[in-house]
Amino acid sequence: MADIKIGLIGAGTVGSGVVKIMAKQTTFFREQLGLPVSLARVADKDLEKLKTLPVGDAILSNDAADVINDPEINVVIELIGGYTFAKEVVLNALKKGKHVITVHFEAAVGGGMPSIKTIREAMIGNDVLSVYTIINGTCNYILTEMTEKGAAFDPTLKEAQRLGFAEANPALDIEGGDTGHKTAIIASLIYDGYCDYDKVPVRGITEITADDIISAKDLGYTIKLLGVIKRKEGEESVDVRVNPVMVHNDHILASVNGVFNAVLLEGDAVGPILLYGAGAGEMPTASAVVSDIIDVARNIKSGDTNRIPMHFYSLENELKIKGIEEIESRFYLRFLVDDKPGVLADIAEEFGDRNISIASVMHKEAHDGNDHVPVIITTDMAIEKDLRDAVAAIEAKAFTHGKTQIIHIED
Amino acid sequence: MADIKIGLIGAGTVGSGVVKIMAKQTTFFREQLGLPVSLARVADKDLEKLKTLPVGDAILSNDAADVINDPEINVVIELIGGYTFAKEVVLNALKKGKHVITVHFEAAVGGGMPSIKTIREAMIGNDVLSVYTIINGTCNYILTEMTEKGAAFDPTLKEAQRLGFAEANPALDIEGGDTGHKTAIIASLIYDGYCDYDKVPVRGITEITADDIISAKDLGYTIKLLGVIKRKEGEESVDVRVNPVMVHNDHILASVNGVFNAVLLEGDAVGPILLYGAGAGEMPTASAVVSDIIDVARNIKSGDTNRIPMHFYSLENELKIKGIEEIESRFYLRFLVDDKPGVLADIAEEFGDRNISIASVMHKEAHDGNDHVPVIITTDMAIEKDLRDAVAAIEAKAFTHGKTQIIHIED
Repeated sequence: MADIKIGLIGAGTVGSGVVKIMAKQTTFFREQLGLPVSLARVADKDLEKLKTLPVGDAILSNDAADVINDPEINVVIELIGGYTFAKEVVLNALKKGKHVITVHFEAAVGGGMPSIKTIREAMIGNDVLSVYTIINGTCNYILTEMTEKGAAFDPTLKEAQRLGFAEANPALDIEGGDTGHKTAIIASLIYDGYCDYDKVPVRGITEITADDIISAKDLGYTIKLLGVIKRKEGEESVDVRVNPVMVHNDHILASVNGVFNAVLLEGDAVGPILLYGAGAGEMPTASAVVSDIIDVARNIKSGDTNRIPMHFYSLENELKIKGIEEIESRFYLRFLVDDKPGVLADIAEEFGDRNISIASVMHKEAHDGNDHVPVIITTDMAIEKDLRDAVAAIEAKAFTHGKTQIIHIED
Repeated sequence: MADIKIGLIGAGTVGSGVVKIMAKQTTFFREQLGLPVSLARVADKDLEKLKTLPVGDAILSNDAADVINDPEINVVIELIGGYTFAKEVVLNALKKGKHVITVHFEAAVGGGMPSIKTIREAMIGNDVLSVYTIINGTCNYILTEMTEKGAAFDPTLKEAQRLGFAEANPALDIEGGDTGHKTAIIASLIYDGYCDYDKVPVRGITEITADDIISAKDLGYTIKLLGVIKRKEGEESVDVRVNPVMVHNDHILASVNGVFNAVLLEGDAVGPILLYGAGAGEMPTASAVVSDIIDVARNIKSGDTNRIPMHFYSLENELKIKGIEEIESRFYLRFLVDDKPGVLADIAEEFGDRNISIASVMHKEAHDGNDHVPVIITTDMAIEKDLRDAVAAIEAKAFTHGKTQIIHIED
C-alpha cells in the first residue's frame, strides 16, 4: 500500500519528542507492524531548531500551510499549543480531508497513561460508576512535599518553582483549573454529553495549611487534589468537581506521590482500575501522540478510518452537574475557637440540627498563652449544602475566629 | 450491515459474567457504538444452569458443536477452561473461519486490567525496558496478611483457603507457577519471541517466614511475589523470572495489597506505567472478554479483521532467558549462625572474595539461652551466581545452621 505520510506542525517539547520516537521506531512500525508510516514534513517557526532534530528525510518548513497544503500528507499532527492558531490549523487540516492528531486526544489526559483508550476500549462493557484523578503533577508534588516535610504551602510552592516543578505563573495548576479541564474531558467521554467546565466546582490547593497536613496524618489520611466524577445508578445529574480530599492511607491513591499522576476508574463489571504514570513531559506525552498515530495508521490500512467514531458533543447535549445541595461526602473541618466551656456543645448542636452525624472530634488544649484553639471534626456522610450551612452558623458565633477549613474525605 | 453473531461456549464463572454484561450492554453497543452484535448462541454441558442466565434470545445447547457448526455465528468465545477439549473447540472454530476469543487473550493476564492492550497499543512507540507484575491474587493476599498481622505462612494459607482466597490445592498459586505462566505470555508479547515457561526460574512464597517479613519492615521494605522481565539495551538475553522480592516502601508496588493485581511497565519514552485492578473473578474477567468482543466487532465492521495482527511464535524463535550467572540484583540474606567471635568476619570475607559489596548488616543478640542467632545482610548489586557461591561457602562452615534465606531487593 501507499505510504501513510505524516506531517507534524509544532516542534516544541512534545513535538520534539514525537520526532525522536518516530526516528527510533519507524523501521519497527514499517517492518514489524506492516504500517508504512513516514514522517514526511515538519513545520515550526524556528527552522534552525528543526535542523537539530532527527527528522530523517522529512521536508522542513517554517510555515504550517506547507504541511496542510501538501496533498500527499494523510495525517496532520498539531502540537502548536495555545488556542487561536492551533484551532485554525486543525480546522484547515480537517477541511483538506486530513486525519488530525492534537494534544487533544490521548495525550490530553494524563500524558502517557492510556486513560482515554482504557475508557473507550478496555472498559467498553462497563458502566463507569466513578472516576478519581490525580492529574496535575505540580499540585501532587507540592502536597507530597508538604506531607513529607511538614512544610507550609508558600515556601513549598517557591521551592517547586525553583526546581522546575511549578510554572512562574502557577495559577492554572494550583487553583485547580488544569485538573478541572482534564476532569471535564473525562466526564464528557464517559457520560456522552458536553461537560461545561465553567459549571464544575473547582477548588485548588492554595488554602491547604501545614496544620491540615498534620491533622490528616493524625487521622490516618493523606491530602490529595482530586478530580472527582460520580454518578449514582438511575440519577441523571453527575457529581463532577475538583477539590482537595483527605484520602485514607490504605487507599491506593494515597500512594501516588510526587509528580506522578493517576486515574482511578470504577466500572460496574471490572471494579476499580488504576492507571499510574508520568502525566506530562516531553517523552511521555510524545508516547501518547505516537500511540494515536499508530491507531490512525491501522485504521487507514484497514480502510475504515471511523473504526472508533469520535464523539462531538453539541452544546445542547449538556451534562447536568450536581450542585452542593446534592453532593454527599464525608468532611473534615477545622474551626478556630475560644478555649472556654460550652463551645463544643454549641458546635455539636448546629450539626445535630441539620442531621449531620459527627464521626470524630479532636479538641486541642490551648498553649503558649493562645486563647484560640483548633477544634477538628470529621463527619459521616452529609449533604454539602447542609454542612456549609452548619459551618456558617458556627462562624457567626462570637467564639469562632477566622475561616473554617473544609476538606472532603474519601475512605 | 448484517448482525455480528456471537456464540459462547462454556458458561462457568467467566462465561456467566459475559452473558450478564452482554444482557446489560448490547443495546448500548448496537445503538450508541453502531456495532450490530448479538449473543446468538450459548452452549454449556449444564443446560439447566444456562436457563438461569439472562441469555435473551440466544439459542441454548449442551453441545459446543452446535455453536461451531452454525454458519451464521461470526465470533466464537471459548470459556471452557482446561486444555484438551478447549483446544479442540478453538481449532475447530478457526477451521470453520470463525473469529475466536478465549481466556487467552486480554483476560489471560490480570483479568480486567488492560495490560495486553497497553503493551500492544498505548506503548507501541516504546521499547519496553522492564515489567514487574504482581499478578497472583492468592499470593498477594497471603503476603499482605502476613505483613499486616506478623503471621506465619502456614496458618495464613489455611485462613486464605477458609475465606476462599486460596484453592484447596494451592500449589499452582503459591509455588509461583501461575505468575510464571502470565509473565511468560507478557515476555513473549514484548520481545516478539517464544518464552518457554519451563526455562523461567520460578520460586513461590512458601519459604517466606514471619521473620523475613519483620526484617523487611525493619529495613523499610515489603515482600511481594513479582514476575520480573528486564532486558538491557543491546543485550540479547532477557531476565525473566518469578521470585519473592523486597520492594522499598516508597515504591508504588509496595502499596498493591490484598487480592489486587498490578503490572508495572517501563517504556523508554513514557517511563513507568502502572496498571492496577482486580486480577480475577467473574465480572472483571468477563469485562476483558467483552472488550475483546468489541475489538473484534469493530474490526469486522471496518472490513479488516487483521487490524492488529496476532503473533504466533514458532518454537524456533525462542527468547534467550538469562541464567543466574547473568542475573544482577541486590539481595537480602538471613543466616542462622553460632553466637561467637569471628563469625561475622568469616562471612564478610566470603563476600569480599567474590567482589560482593555489603550494604547493611544486622547481627542480633542471642536470647532465651539460644546459641544460634540470625545475621541479616543486604548487598549492593551482585551477580546471583556469585552470591549463591558465597552463600554455599558460608553454609559449609561449622558455625552456620539450617538453610539461608535469599530474597531479591528492588529499590
